[in-house]
Amino acid sequence: MLSQQELLTLFKETRADSEKICSYLETEDYVVQPIVDVSPPKWHLGHTTWFFEEFVLKEYSSEHKLFDENTAYVFNSYYESVGEKVVRTDRGNLSRPTVAWIYTFREFVTAKVIDLLVNAELTQEALQVIEIGCHHEKQHQELLYTDIKYILGNNPLMPVYNSEFEENPVQNVEQKWLEVEEGIYEIGHNSDDFCYDNEQGFHQTFLQNYNISNKLVTNKEFLEFMEAGGYEDVLLWHAEAWDWINTHNIKSPFYWHLIENKWHQYTLQGLQELNAEAPVTHISYYEAFAYAQWKGLRLPTEQEWEVAQERFDWGSRWEWTESAYAPYPNYTKPDGALGEYNGKFMVNQKVLRGASIATSKNHARPTYRNFFHPHLRWQFTGFRLAK
Amino acid sequence: MLSQQELLTLFKETRADSEKICSYLETEDYVVQPIVDVSPPKWHLGHTTWFFEEFVLKEYSSEHKLFDENTAYVFNSYYESVGEKVVRTDRGNLSRPTVAWIYTFREFVTAKVIDLLVNAELTQEALQVIEIGCHHEKQHQELLYTDIKYILGNNPLMPVYNSEFEENPVQNVEQKWLEVEEGIYEIGHNSDDFCYDNEQGFHQTFLQNYNISNKLVTNKEFLEFMEAGGYEDVLLWHAEAWDWINTHNIKSPFYWHLIENKWHQYTLQGLQELNAEAPVTHISYYEAFAYAQWKGLRLPTEQEWEVAQERFDWGSRWEWTESAYAPYPNYTKPDGALGEYNGKFMVNQKVLRGASIATSKNHARPTYRNFFHPHLRWQFTGFRLAK
Amino acid sequence: MLSQQELLTLFKETRADSEKICSYLETEDYVVQPIVDVSPPKWHLGHTTWFFEEFVLKEYSSEHKLFDENTAYVFNSYYESVGEKVVRTDRGNLSRPTVAWIYTFREFVTAKVIDLLVNAELTQEALQVIEIGCHHEKQHQELLYTDIKYILGNNPLMPVYNSEFEENPVQNVEQKWLEVEEGIYEIGHNSDDFCYDNEQGFHQTFLQNYNISNKLVTNKEFLEFMEAGGYEDVLLWHAEAWDWINTHNIKSPFYWHLIENKWHQYTLQGLQELNAEAPVTHISYYEAFAYAQWKGLRLPTEQEWEVAQERFDWGSRWEWTESAYAPYPNYTKPDGALGEYNGKFMVNQKVLRGASIATSKNHARPTYRNFFHPHLRWQFTGFRLAK
Amino acid sequence: MLSQQELLTLFKETRADSEKICSYLETEDYVVQPIVDVSPPKWHLGHTTWFFEEFVLKEYSSEHKLFDENTAYVFNSYYESVGEKVVRTDRGNLSRPTVAWIYTFREFVTAKVIDLLVNAELTQEALQVIEIGCHHEKQHQELLYTDIKYILGNNPLMPVYNSEFEENPVQNVEQKWLEVEEGIYEIGHNSDDFCYDNEQGFHQTFLQNYNISNKLVTNKEFLEFMEAGGYEDVLLWHAEAWDWINTHNIKSPFYWHLIENKWHQYTLQGLQELNAEAPVTHISYYEAFAYAQWKGLRLPTEQEWEVAQERFDWGSRWEWTESAYAPYPNYTKPDGALGEYNGKFMVNQKVLRGASIATSKNHARPTYRNFFHPHLRWQFTGFRLAK
Repeated sequence: MLSQQELLTLFKETRADSEKICSYLETEDYVVQPIVDVSPPKWHLGHTTWFFEEFVLKEYSSEHKLFDENTAYVFNSYYESVGEKVVRTDRGNLSRPTVAWIYTFREFVTAKVIDLLVNAELTQEALQVIEIGCHHEKQHQELLYTDIKYILGNNPLMPVYNSEFEENPVQNVEQKWLEVEEGIYEIGHNSDDFCYDNEQGFHQTFLQNYNISNKLVTNKEFLEFMEAGGYEDVLLWHAEAWDWINTHNIKSPFYWHLIENKWHQYTLQGLQELNAEAPVTHISYYEAFAYAQWKGLRLPTEQEWEVAQERFDWGSRWEWTESAYAPYPNYTKPDGALGEYNGKFMVNQKVLRGASIATSKNHARPTYRNFFHPHLRWQFTGFRLAK
Repeated sequence: MLSQQELLTLFKETRADSEKICSYLETEDYVVQPIVDVSPPKWHLGHTTWFFEEFVLKEYSSEHKLFDENTAYVFNSYYESVGEKVVRTDRGNLSRPTVAWIYTFREFVTAKVIDLLVNAELTQEALQVIEIGCHHEKQHQELLYTDIKYILGNNPLMPVYNSEFEENPVQNVEQKWLEVEEGIYEIGHNSDDFCYDNEQGFHQTFLQNYNISNKLVTNKEFLEFMEAGGYEDVLLWHAEAWDWINTHNIKSPFYWHLIENKWHQYTLQGLQELNAEAPVTHISYYEAFAYAQWKGLRLPTEQEWEVAQERFDWGSRWEWTESAYAPYPNYTKPDGALGEYNGKFMVNQKVLRGASIATSKNHARPTYRNFFHPHLRWQFTGFRLAK
Repeated sequence: MLSQQELLTLFKETRADSEKICSYLETEDYVVQPIVDVSPPKWHLGHTTWFFEEFVLKEYSSEHKLFDENTAYVFNSYYESVGEKVVRTDRGNLSRPTVAWIYTFREFVTAKVIDLLVNAELTQEALQVIEIGCHHEKQHQELLYTDIKYILGNNPLMPVYNSEFEENPVQNVEQKWLEVEEGIYEIGHNSDDFCYDNEQGFHQTFLQNYNISNKLVTNKEFLEFMEAGGYEDVLLWHAEAWDWINTHNIKSPFYWHLIENKWHQYTLQGLQELNAEAPVTHISYYEAFAYAQWKGLRLPTEQEWEVAQERFDWGSRWEWTESAYAPYPNYTKPDGALGEYNGKFMVNQKVLRGASIATSKNHARPTYRNFFHPHLRWQFTGFRLAK
Repeated sequence: MLSQQELLTLFKETRADSEKICSYLETEDYVVQPIVDVSPPKWHLGHTTWFFEEFVLKEYSSEHKLFDENTAYVFNSYYESVGEKVVRTDRGNLSRPTVAWIYTFREFVTAKVIDLLVNAELTQEALQVIEIGCHHEKQHQELLYTDIKYILGNNPLMPVYNSEFEENPVQNVEQKWLEVEEGIYEIGHNSDDFCYDNEQGFHQTFLQNYNISNKLVTNKEFLEFMEAGGYEDVLLWHAEAWDWINTHNIKSPFYWHLIENKWHQYTLQGLQELNAEAPVTHISYYEAFAYAQWKGLRLPTEQEWEVAQERFDWGSRWEWTESAYAPYPNYTKPDGALGEYNGKFMVNQKVLRGASIATSKNHARPTYRNFFHPHLRWQFTGFRLAK
């Protein structure tokens, strides 16, 4: 549990980081929403601010006057129990409020929360909500990176976001199989530090003997799968995956472009030649699974990943696991609007473990349970194998 | 036929007018595309500029160097025979090129064309293409108004575009039936002035005796239809119209809002109480037809409208007619890319006659044939009755 | 106007003809509905019977007891003002009532109407409705042929319907251009014989000089268009047509199959080699228009067709015209449910003139106005050229 | 492992059972496919027969001549690696081959397999495939019941299937919580008897303390949830579930009808008043989950169900569990076409345990893992609670 002083530092840093990420954008880049999974950057900036006004200032600052009555309506996201929300697919049609307005709104709310943290004596509950708000904003920082990448990378001009943002770190290590022995292991978050509700419910689980790779699958390895006809062999794919790759004509990871017979990749530094040694990224669970089938291997479960994670490096790619996203034993949904946070997504999604190069600093931990639908590829996703 | 000097004036005016229309916008307003029929304002500005570079500068300015090789790709619209085009529904996902870039592109092309008109001795053909380009841009000026209205009017904040833009002029005249006698009449464009290819083919037609109203149907009259259950009476509607109003839950003209039991209308001046005496607008052909059925009357054909038009005022609303959009006798498509201009739309659309308060000055004439699909409502459409 | 005795003959013949058409079917063939435009044969048999019970027996037979209360619900079609109807796309999901039940229903209603025609003294109004009912059933006889062809011809087994049904008569005549002089002509139905409401409103029209071909376009000619790349040349197509052929990957008329480099055609006699001299059929208006563009010619209007029709043979193909389906001058919708018959379809459809080899005998006349959406191909459609 | 003699008995019984189930149908009922999840009964009869011809007669009967070359094409289902298949949604459009043809095909194949079982000396492998074929056909027997129920129960005439088929057995027992203690348990199939590949991989798992109900949730209890506004309380539902109930306007279990203020249920015996004490059925996983949320309880995992199942009665409803369908540790896909059987569905589905009143006799066992997408309701699904 952070002290009020530590929280003040975290809050200031977090708010500044979001704005730093957006400092490379043109005004127009803040506005568009090319697909339903991507939100306009200005929406992320507004929504994370609305969160602090709605759940912190309205609750814990007695004399707080809303910055603008219309805010909640536009920037609420999936909190169905707090007022009306703008249907998600419409976000990209809203030219107003403007980007300038949103920065003013941010400054206003940031100042008010700082004032509260500096001058008020806040309850544990209030401190907790502010801490959640910071972590919530850090999640949106990762989405800012991936949504900006989608917006720029699907523009025919393929503009550079930031020529210094390196997204393809090479793993300088030989591939090895780490062995784990059968037995009872402990899973889940077990300290006073911050975590999400879905990590709680520290519990025992039984694992069979297994092996897990110390290294993520690389671009070079994935190319071998492609060249061996992996995308054309129905026996490697789930039935839904086969429909999906055929309907969408999927033949390579997302952001890959074959130009004059050489594979390139759109990155936040612009279009580049594919780095063979970098871990493959922007692939779906379906593709990770098909690759593993082709190798005669499999993906680890999230429990296997968590138990072994101290023995390998992780953090450049969110790693697909074989585990469906489900509540831990004894999981209970928090009351009220914040209770919608995680539980409502626990169906038809796969757990991803680790973190990515877009994950906000201090936001990764071994028990973190990320989750996405199995076909999604706009995140920095990758995978390691198990057997 | 305009002289080179007159054309210079027209060109300058036209270019300035487009920029004037956009001067009321925020940068963000230039970017979005809420529905496929609406284009982002920045696209209109770029596209009308691309037209002059593609069809004038590339053709008639010997040493012209393109402003940017990527332009054509992004700003081509429906000219399928000139290079690759950006699929129409993607226009609203393109944050780049930026608005600032487009204004620079405009200045560049405007200056080059002015230079040509001032210093070169242009052929008749070149002058004609420039004149077409001006009228093409005037069409986009009307679309700028209606697309901006859609963008702002479908934003939950309903911002004002320009508090001085009056879109609801009242017709100060008693309703009367104008009689026209059976006989042979002449139809179509018959002078040297500019017109589109679809107006040409001046020809004779035979009309039966008919009556046409001197006045457009008003909001008050349309409200009577609504209050009499017009939207619920299947016998008044075409089969496709009945499906359409039920699928989309249509119960009033577009931009109408019932607020505390009073009808309001979003206008370019913002949300206002409905003006009962103003001509009804933003209605589909289907609704105009159903109203006429309810009255035991009908819509005029485009020939009936053209023959009678000198005897009534028109110009505040595009007027739906009963005529399907089809080629006139002896119509021939112009050769080449400009030949795609009109003929390719001559199916499944209805002709509208007149002009609207959003029509560019000097762009209206009695033979003008506008056309839209029968369900579209984002234009300033209205109607008058015949019998 | 037919006498009661003549009507009795017409009625008996008509009822027997429908059953003759279906005598070649297996029970299973009566049930399916592969696309929304095609209705199951058993539905046609039930619907035409429901028509006589609903509009004749219920109205004019004082003591009539309904065969079954559930009938109307299942067999009503588009008469929105008479009770609830089964949504059209669900027709193919209804295994009950069975085919045997429907034949019993037919026998019951046929006998009752015969009884009425033999024993009662019917009013002019009653006689008219029975006559309409017969013509209504004749329309469904043509649909029975085309819907059966769709059901069998889209089955991978491609079964024969009737080995004696010849659908490809050759036109033994040289192609010639028939000239028609400019002037006022009379259009529409002008006798006491039966016709539909949409043919009434006999009226004058003015036609310019024109030429019309004495011969339908043949398979051989259409193949030339295909081989010249007609389906790939965007400039020949309407914008909506171009989308349509690309979305549906249309590259030849419907029912054509290229087998070992030879074109074949599925016919009601089964799969056959293409008859080069037969008139092309199962094409959309879009394809007819593109062919005409390619030839530098055009389709006739329905008025041009009607004025010239005495001078050429017609009747093997419904002929697409350039005319949109619209009311004739002074057209008024009949009152009541039968008034829904034609007027409600007068938007977004093209008129076809003539008749086809599937048209019921005594059902063709020079003023007949058939109509379909421009993309539909399951009817025996063809075209002749004009200039 | 069954002896060849025992297998002969099983085979004969199984084939006869499928035909018994269909003996209550009219020919037309065999043909239709109202939704993609439902197959026409004639397809089930043909497909289960094709299976024996394809995988038994072709492989193990040296001189076998196919009954008809077109068979495989029409009756293959999801075995993507064996020839071309008819796209699933088209099954309901195929009127041919006829029902009579299919029965002849069945007799032919049944006789040939019996001949093999009586006269040949079959390998273990051949015997195994025949046994799989019998169990495969038993699965289709359950689908025959549920698909027939869908076909008849969605017909507005709501015909009776079989007036003696009782689908609502009451559980004559008090509700009690069965306690299970924390510890390591063994899961999966562990004998020589037949089971599917997905049950193999007998393994240990660790369970926390839990309680599971001895009784399925009843109609009466589910009505309480409905009357308490369960379908309107967003906080009880997964995000995808909330979209689903709102898009499809779901307000009660499937086949429920409120008639004159009394709840009725369509059953295979026809429309009946709802039996309050019977276990609720035809509900989705989403509804089971929402009910559990409302009670402050949860669904069991499949491991919890399997460990406790000896202590309660089961078999009238397939019971939704919280477990996503995933491979057991050490699961390996069988080689070849039969290997497509289960593994390819292991994503986005939930496991159901137990059996239903439609399950074929001798087809239920404690380790059986059924699976469906969470929104599906046409099976006899129900649930019990855990905590």
